[in-house]
Amino acid sequence: MTTGPEPTPAALPAPVTVIGLGNLGRAIAGALLRDGHPVTVWNRSPARAEPLVARGATAAATVAEAIAAADLVIVALLDSPAAHEVLTGAAGAVGGRALVNLTSGGPEDARALAAWAAQHGAEYLHGAVYAVPQTIGTAQSSVTYSGSAAAHRRWRAPLDLLGKGTFLGADAGRASGYDVAVLAGMYGMLGGFFHAAAMAKAAGISTAELTPRLVSWLTDLFPALATFAEEIDSGDYTTGESSLAMNATGLETIIRASQTQGIPASTLAPLKALIDRQVAGGHGSESLARVAELLLSGP
Amino acid sequence: MTTGPEPTPAALPAPVTVIGLGNLGRAIAGALLRDGHPVTVWNRSPARAEPLVARGATAAATVAEAIAAADLVIVALLDSPAAHEVLTGAAGAVGGRALVNLTSGGPEDARALAAWAAQHGAEYLHGAVYAVPQTIGTAQSSVTYSGSAAAHRRWRAPLDLLGKGTFLGADAGRASGYDVAVLAGMYGMLGGFFHAAAMAKAAGISTAELTPRLVSWLTDLFPALATFAEEIDSGDYTTGESSLAMNATGLETIIRASQTQGIPASTLAPLKALIDRQVAGGHGSESLARVAELLLSGP
Repeated sequence: MTTGPEPTPAALPAPVTVIGLGNLGRAIAGALLRDGHPVTVWNRSPARAEPLVARGATAAATVAEAIAAADLVIVALLDSPAAHEVLTGAAGAVGGRALVNLTSGGPEDARALAAWAAQHGAEYLHGAVYAVPQTIGTAQSSVTYSGSAAAHRRWRAPLDLLGKGTFLGADAGRASGYDVAVLAGMYGMLGGFFHAAAMAKAAGISTAELTPRLVSWLTDLFPALATFAEEIDSGDYTTGESSLAMNATGLETIIRASQTQGIPASTLAPLKALIDRQVAGGHGSESLARVAELLLSGP
Repeated sequence: MTTGPEPTPAALPAPVTVIGLGNLGRAIAGALLRDGHPVTVWNRSPARAEPLVARGATAAATVAEAIAAADLVIVALLDSPAAHEVLTGAAGAVGGRALVNLTSGGPEDARALAAWAAQHGAEYLHGAVYAVPQTIGTAQSSVTYSGSAAAHRRWRAPLDLLGKGTFLGADAGRASGYDVAVLAGMYGMLGGFFHAAAMAKAAGISTAELTPRLVSWLTDLFPALATFAEEIDSGDYTTGESSLAMNATGLETIIRASQTQGIPASTLAPLKALIDRQVAGGHGSESLARVAELLLSGP
């Protein structure tokens, strides 16, 4: 027998609205229904709502009607322009509500919608979802938030159904800023992987044979990324171990090998061009990480 | 007290020649000297040999003289054309010796030198070194070999001084085939990292803040690479969870966010072009991994 205070009776699950029923929106609405929340949904093509309605959701005829049905409105649309269009078209309905926007986009998009929401009396929280398709809307995914701390605190329980949440600060663009940067890094790795797979095939090596060796080498390199990060943050590239000149030679070898194998080196050429510009600028003995400066200085 | 056979007296360390004294060659010669091997070195600019001579190495005046000094000849030159030029210039000296070539290059380069070595009565073993500058020539690095199994067996003891060795088979091009593919994958990841660093900076996020989140997400994606590998090896892209169409939209969002931040999207554009070609070909619902097919089919 244990002693202690009586458990507080759990509050009834609050009504939640989900705008947009792509993969993410459908998974979120499903998770909320499973947890007993009254769920109202809206999607541009209404057929997407039918399986959720069969499970107890209410399909709203308009965006404004959907927003009016709950104090917590989760938005998961295709892209930022769609989110902007759908929300601003229902400006009259958002006052007093919390808008949690999980639509992918850049930090400027999030900041613009946050300013618009403030003008219309709504709280705005932006979220970036890290999930593979199988883990969307489950505890195996994670979501970073930024914007309204009050909204994040008040709605933590239903938001935790979408994945492990982390609040990054009051700047509504911060979660997106991380998100688009991390995804740019991801696409860099994926482009490299597909190129590597093609080169291995051309040498008679299957992708299944290649992948563990590639993953092992990339893992070995992660500590080097932390060193590059220090160099980029300090702007001091003079003590680097992996010089621009050495990498110019190394990458030239890979590009030549790729072309000899009949594999176009298109995914590697842009990095080579950045390295060559820094070497031509007299920085060959400095760290490879100096290429980030060229990206920061614009086209 | 233990029983058992008397230990065999260790053979005297064999003479070894090292051709090429860049970072790799110097580290190898140093490791061999530490282990007591008589070491003969040659480098195009002789000054590089001086610190090694001070430690007991012999500097040869010509490549042929260097090769004649040992039955094991380790070659670590700048690139494949240099290795080809230096070795073929001393063709008369190589008969009966084992040539272990650690020079970076493509599989065709390694196979061509293996054929040349066979014509001149030499054993040929090609090696690819996986090391960061700090671990070259130490047990923390690893070396994959392919070509002469006999040479790998006979010279395993001194070769193990260069890093943990793995023999991949009799095709002299196999170690290089893995190597250039893995390095292509590495440069993809590095290009993505530098792009990500610039995008994060533009959003007010330091590279030190970004890097752990990026590393965590890339690590989460490694299992997806194994799935992509199965698709590429089977040529069946129809069951993939991460479709070309979804990634076309996702990558478009990242590129737009990057450009809005003033960061040129040059490193991401080639992958986007490959995805768009597959979507235009009617494969939007198939797996992203199908982009590898375009690389395999040439420019």
